[in-house]
Amino acid sequence: MSDARQQALDYAQQNRERFLDDLVKIVAIPSVSMQEEHKDDLVRAAEWLAAHLTKIGMDNVQLLPTGKHPVVFGEWMKAGDGAPTVLIYGHYDVQPVDPLDLWKTKPYEATRQGDLLYGRGTSDMKGQAIATLAAVESIMRTSSLPVNVKWLFEGEEEMGSVSMEAFLPKHKDLFAADFCLNPDAGMIAADKPTITYGLRGLAYFDVFVWGPEHDLHSGLYGGTVHNPAQALIELIAGMHDENGSITLPGFYDPVRPISAEEHADMARLPQNVAFYQEQTGVPQLWGEPNYLPVERVGARPTLEVNGFLSGYTGEGSKTVLPAKAMAKISCRLVPDQTPHEVHKQLLAYMEANAPKTIKWEVKLLNAAPTAITDRDLPAVKSMAQAMETVWGVRPLFKREGGSIPVVSLLQDTVGAESVLFGASLPEDNVHAPNERLHLPTWYKAIDAIIHFFYNLG
Amino acid sequence: MSDARQQALDYAQQNRERFLDDLVKIVAIPSVSMQEEHKDDLVRAAEWLAAHLTKIGMDNVQLLPTGKHPVVFGEWMKAGDGAPTVLIYGHYDVQPVDPLDLWKTKPYEATRQGDLLYGRGTSDMKGQAIATLAAVESIMRTSSLPVNVKWLFEGEEEMGSVSMEAFLPKHKDLFAADFCLNPDAGMIAADKPTITYGLRGLAYFDVFVWGPEHDLHSGLYGGTVHNPAQALIELIAGMHDENGSITLPGFYDPVRPISAEEHADMARLPQNVAFYQEQTGVPQLWGEPNYLPVERVGARPTLEVNGFLSGYTGEGSKTVLPAKAMAKISCRLVPDQTPHEVHKQLLAYMEANAPKTIKWEVKLLNAAPTAITDRDLPAVKSMAQAMETVWGVRPLFKREGGSIPVVSLLQDTVGAESVLFGASLPEDNVHAPNERLHLPTWYKAIDAIIHFFYNLG
Repeated sequence: MSDARQQALDYAQQNRERFLDDLVKIVAIPSVSMQEEHKDDLVRAAEWLAAHLTKIGMDNVQLLPTGKHPVVFGEWMKAGDGAPTVLIYGHYDVQPVDPLDLWKTKPYEATRQGDLLYGRGTSDMKGQAIATLAAVESIMRTSSLPVNVKWLFEGEEEMGSVSMEAFLPKHKDLFAADFCLNPDAGMIAADKPTITYGLRGLAYFDVFVWGPEHDLHSGLYGGTVHNPAQALIELIAGMHDENGSITLPGFYDPVRPISAEEHADMARLPQNVAFYQEQTGVPQLWGEPNYLPVERVGARPTLEVNGFLSGYTGEGSKTVLPAKAMAKISCRLVPDQTPHEVHKQLLAYMEANAPKTIKWEVKLLNAAPTAITDRDLPAVKSMAQAMETVWGVRPLFKREGGSIPVVSLLQDTVGAESVLFGASLPEDNVHAPNERLHLPTWYKAIDAIIHFFYNLG
Repeated sequence: MSDARQQALDYAQQNRERFLDDLVKIVAIPSVSMQEEHKDDLVRAAEWLAAHLTKIGMDNVQLLPTGKHPVVFGEWMKAGDGAPTVLIYGHYDVQPVDPLDLWKTKPYEATRQGDLLYGRGTSDMKGQAIATLAAVESIMRTSSLPVNVKWLFEGEEEMGSVSMEAFLPKHKDLFAADFCLNPDAGMIAADKPTITYGLRGLAYFDVFVWGPEHDLHSGLYGGTVHNPAQALIELIAGMHDENGSITLPGFYDPVRPISAEEHADMARLPQNVAFYQEQTGVPQLWGEPNYLPVERVGARPTLEVNGFLSGYTGEGSKTVLPAKAMAKISCRLVPDQTPHEVHKQLLAYMEANAPKTIKWEVKLLNAAPTAITDRDLPAVKSMAQAMETVWGVRPLFKREGGSIPVVSLLQDTVGAESVLFGASLPEDNVHAPNERLHLPTWYKAIDAIIHFFYNLG
């Protein structure tokens, strides 16, 4: 091991309490992006990060305005033209803390209990952001970075990164990089280092069905009118066949088959049938019979009813034949599906299947592209090697069922693939009361990031 | 025509303005049964009716307490043992008047405009109650009734006659009668006198489906868990076949076929395809292809979704995989179906079709038996003859799609069949703003009731 690498690791080891103090300080800023009353706290958190970037030796540090909360930029480009440029991503905003009465500690006063640090944002993802800052600081204080780095801290991830689609193309050159290091994904377990190489996309729709011009008395008209709730139910029921496969025309055509190697990796993951049953409490799992649950979540598309409303849903027995029905339906997408193609497929399905007894409308509400990172990229291999060095086991490769909007936006605008990892664990209660961070894992993540930079360099 | 009959008709003719004044007076009492703040108004309306019964010569007039609003009783039993006893039914409660801003007149100040009298309850059914009182007064003032009469005015019809099921069996002897005259059904058109001889029953259910223990992230779990909204949708979709027939096991077994004579009568009704299309505004009617729309409404059972709720139904794109779904489902029943048999059939359907991936529950919320009156009963013939005398055309015979709870309760407790008629017209805006009564039709109804009593006697 090079002297420089070891010196950085030693520095990180000696400064663990300091890094923890930094984390406590930024957790104390209640930067809840979706609550208007915290607007100034978002600016405070951004300014804290900017000051910290300057303190650890970054250049050109600045806050860039967006439609909503500022982006923090900084860079260190002195590794030279031959060295790769790594864009380090993070978000400084957090989820709301309600319901407050379920917290056992104060959410903005990060509180250590044994190996765990409780507080809003400790895991998602102020802790992960501090880990990248700690790793870079450890190298900068002991020698110099073997790669160029740029930083992008946004304040809107918890509200869907709403400004990023307009912001990134405008600042394409500023954020130009060879790839992105994104610590906003997690690990499967504390002893199972994990690299996430795929994210599902999303196409989210409102579907409306209209029947009679106004609510009718079900006694006086029932039997002559196609109940719009019934009509929408029939349409949605037809969107899956008896095996749980989606029937929209051409839906599966662009879906990449799962390779034998991928399947073997997926089968090694501890997220088996028992895991999903325990996490969800369902009597029995469901889904395409020829795929593992973890494949169905990560590598296969879905069509879900996120909401359905029609008629009278209060107490008692109102005998209404409703005038309309609506459903929220969304598809999680996998490469090479696109939200706009799926939108067309849904419209084609409705055209073909909607009866003449009703009127209907489909609105695309939200579209997020799929993302997949080549597992053979040098950056991915550097991270895999770094994790194996720190944890002593080869990391698991995982495709995640959710979407991180910035990942596909960076692919599209900057052309940078993301290396997705993180010290977050499934039991960290992210987005929930008593969010926490497992400190031994967090310290390992700092070490792994140091190794990652030296592996790249 | 007998002198007595003609004298009664003359009296009615001469007192039309007086009868109208009576109606204006009772409309002025805002007897909205389902609104607690009108509790005293209900008592005032009941007392007004009691005083009126006494004034026109009824005996033994009294208010009988129920669980909620009082029942008004009165009788005149001097026609002798050989004469039939007619129970005259009415309700003095009305629907709420909101939205008030859509009324063109004050709802409790009955306002005459040409042939129409606007006001809450003018048509449903204070006007109908006054018509029976006016007819009996016309006979009592000019000679004496050829039949015995009893009166039952309830104050809870607009809230489902909730007290009647407990009240009637307790007062079985008091209300003993040969049949019931019920003017709470309407006419198809002002020139089409109508007798309703069948009412559908009702079985109303809450259906619950539970999936995961709590709402899930649709990205992280979608594909492994049977979405409970989806599961309930699949179950409900299967409750009809592609022809709109209901698939609950044994559902149609007790349904009486429609006789050739009934079908011919139904085909004569002006409620054809164009009528239903105009009333509902749907692009195209729906239902069992081998039946007329009016048969599907009156003589065929239905299964309707009255409400459906699951997941997120507000604005925007919340990617939730909901933990539960619920639907309100009701069946309109025809002879000889019973609500409790249909409950068993729905349970059997769920047992056979609900997948093991979810949990479910069905609750029976409301059960109303079907009612059908023999069209050859002397009382029905007397009314048909009376209507033909007044309107100059044979009345239409109709089966109504709705339920009037008291009709089947009187069949069960007192053993009295109901003669269902009334001066209410489809365009009267009952239960809606600008409720109104067509006065020429109302005057004819008073005459028809006078003829009816003489035809019976």
